[in-house]
Amino acid sequence: MGVTPHVVIVGAGFGGLYAARALKRADVRVTVIDRRNHHLFQPLLYQVATAGLSPGDIAYPIRAVLRRQKNARVLLEEAVGVDVAARKVVLKTGEIPYDYLILATGAQHSYFGHDDWEPWAPGLKSLEDALEIRRRILLAFERAEREADESRRKALLTFVIVGGGPTGVELAGAIAEISRHVMAQDFRVIDPRQGRIVLVEAGPRILPAYPESLSAKAQASLEKMGVEVLTKSLVTSVRPDAVSIGDRRIPTTTTVWAAGVQASPLARSLGVPLDRAGRVLVQPDLTVPGHPEVFVIGDLATFLHQGGKLLPGVAPVAIQQGRHAARNIVRACQGKALEPFHYIDKGSLATIGRAAAVADFGRIKLSGFFAWLAWLLVHIFFLIGFRNRFVVMIDWAWAYFCYHRAARLITGDIDKYDRSPEKRA
Amino acid sequence: MGVTPHVVIVGAGFGGLYAARALKRADVRVTVIDRRNHHLFQPLLYQVATAGLSPGDIAYPIRAVLRRQKNARVLLEEAVGVDVAARKVVLKTGEIPYDYLILATGAQHSYFGHDDWEPWAPGLKSLEDALEIRRRILLAFERAEREADESRRKALLTFVIVGGGPTGVELAGAIAEISRHVMAQDFRVIDPRQGRIVLVEAGPRILPAYPESLSAKAQASLEKMGVEVLTKSLVTSVRPDAVSIGDRRIPTTTTVWAAGVQASPLARSLGVPLDRAGRVLVQPDLTVPGHPEVFVIGDLATFLHQGGKLLPGVAPVAIQQGRHAARNIVRACQGKALEPFHYIDKGSLATIGRAAAVADFGRIKLSGFFAWLAWLLVHIFFLIGFRNRFVVMIDWAWAYFCYHRAARLITGDIDKYDRSPEKRA
Repeated sequence: MGVTPHVVIVGAGFGGLYAARALKRADVRVTVIDRRNHHLFQPLLYQVATAGLSPGDIAYPIRAVLRRQKNARVLLEEAVGVDVAARKVVLKTGEIPYDYLILATGAQHSYFGHDDWEPWAPGLKSLEDALEIRRRILLAFERAEREADESRRKALLTFVIVGGGPTGVELAGAIAEISRHVMAQDFRVIDPRQGRIVLVEAGPRILPAYPESLSAKAQASLEKMGVEVLTKSLVTSVRPDAVSIGDRRIPTTTTVWAAGVQASPLARSLGVPLDRAGRVLVQPDLTVPGHPEVFVIGDLATFLHQGGKLLPGVAPVAIQQGRHAARNIVRACQGKALEPFHYIDKGSLATIGRAAAVADFGRIKLSGFFAWLAWLLVHIFFLIGFRNRFVVMIDWAWAYFCYHRAARLITGDIDKYDRSPEKRA
Repeated sequence: MGVTPHVVIVGAGFGGLYAARALKRADVRVTVIDRRNHHLFQPLLYQVATAGLSPGDIAYPIRAVLRRQKNARVLLEEAVGVDVAARKVVLKTGEIPYDYLILATGAQHSYFGHDDWEPWAPGLKSLEDALEIRRRILLAFERAEREADESRRKALLTFVIVGGGPTGVELAGAIAEISRHVMAQDFRVIDPRQGRIVLVEAGPRILPAYPESLSAKAQASLEKMGVEVLTKSLVTSVRPDAVSIGDRRIPTTTTVWAAGVQASPLARSLGVPLDRAGRVLVQPDLTVPGHPEVFVIGDLATFLHQGGKLLPGVAPVAIQQGRHAARNIVRACQGKALEPFHYIDKGSLATIGRAAAVADFGRIKLSGFFAWLAWLLVHIFFLIGFRNRFVVMIDWAWAYFCYHRAARLITGDIDKYDRSPEKRA
């Protein structure tokens, strides 16, 4: 090739960032493009949405992560397409040529054709989403305190979470904790403990990716915390003042969407086969058909594991794929053949609330306090490169012992920036 | 009176909150009205604006502060006026009657008749202001990294702070630190150390409220850090791409306003004499003429101290006045005469940067490391009721030893929410 190959990585989530770091010693130039200046520790995003952590606790500047990696540069830009024939990434302003491309732009919410539901049921993918959900939850309590009408007050104190995957379960548990403990004594008119938290899942059980026994334990834990769990319940309408499940109507002013995802639209510009959710059907070596220089990883990719099992959209998959794509690029530079990707499943963890979680480590299945402890340790351990690891631990220890939540802030002019259903209606 | 007197406090800054807490054991009903749900530790706001601390570190829910005070309730509402004749506070929706009123709504920025400068030179009063300034500073570096034109790049790396009071000095010092140390290795094209930081003061010296010797020391410290200090320099124009001081033009895309304040407009509705900055000329007992049941405290009040000296707009004044107003209300309830307020000056402190500050404790004047240590201890000590005291200390210790800044996040879609001068122009 003569000149140093240029590797462009789009997206600085787990997949993109681990790929970049894995290229540290490779003889390539790396450009990481992201439309945000920070990497987000997404598994803890629900903690920001429920006022347990501050944005700064779970986000970290991409530049700081790659500061010492001299072969890498960072570009704060939005990629809008890929020209695979010309080997160029099209940016909002300008374009950037590549020799190798790693696409890792992840997924966004999907309302299954009901995009009009989004204003009343925001999803949880970015820091902005989390702050908006935090704002709605906290404002609902404030408005309930001032509401004279009994039925409207009840709707203000009802929180519906659509989707019984890990995010939905974590959100429901955290909102239950807030209303039962953290805010219990803050108000004079309402009793936050009277709040109603409803978790709605279309399938037969929550946490469908986990063994059945753990799903049952998770549901029991949630119910003990006061969460109503509705399974086999397909949401048919989301309005500013209610969520409907067929004929059943749940009056609520605060709904959170944790039900479905679709791949980032960038995938379409590749001109390769996508699955129903818009993800790229990658080959065993993580490249796309006909383009051995284009890798797609993480939530943007659909990867068929041994036995035809789909890999879940979680951080460990993205991290391992990022590292593998990097290794394959190094092999390609050396003229070697690309190797197929194998996922090493180290287990799954989901937390339900204070000292309750479920863990599936294959043969070992945990629930309750020990699963929660495992969850805590794994998450703190994975906050690598985050100086905040220690601070987050103290925050949590404090929250654990004092039922206190650090970040109960409503920012923005309460009227001017109001995006709540009530005001929009 | 028969029924329990109703004390309404508008504004939950230092003055309002300390007044509410001082009424804890009084036989009154207390209502605290604020348009935000959080109390703000304003002396550290510049740390949020310069990415050193997260909003959650310096803000705390008002409800949580007053949780155990059973005679107090909190209302998230905006007061728009006072009807002193009818003894009512007019809210955005509805009104609220009082027997005693404490007005503590503070001050906002003043552009001295040049309100059109605001978009290009935001001030620093709220969390939203701080996040907007943080966003502009961080984006300026990002844009400079991508800017091909030399003179435009220079303008992007020039930061002008208008106003040489404590806020301006603290901001200039913190921005110098960011560019000299924190971000020094983050970029590949620009060298953030080449950044130019200019502090502009109209008067003959910075920190005019301090003794002259400390002003000189502060200026020397700033200059050592690379800050250009321009005194006797009146800003005559602020544009998206430059600040002018008479004929002198400083090309810059990031200007911060720390020059002047004016009282909250609520003061006008009282119908009593105001000073030029719109502050209420309070009587020695902190009430307004003709209305012994209306108290005005903190930045909203002008109080002539012994010898005709004006009290500065700082937290200790607001705190002492809040407590004094509360005591006077208790006296009035008991049919006793109101007492005049006396300010006990415990000294002034201003920080310039890492391990540099000036302190004026009357006979004792400190500068350098020991003043900084005093500043640190006083501020951490005053974070009372903030669970974050310990966390903030660790954050600072970390920042101190590692030149790291925790909260370097640009939130919001980089284009969509862009309010920077560049895009507006």
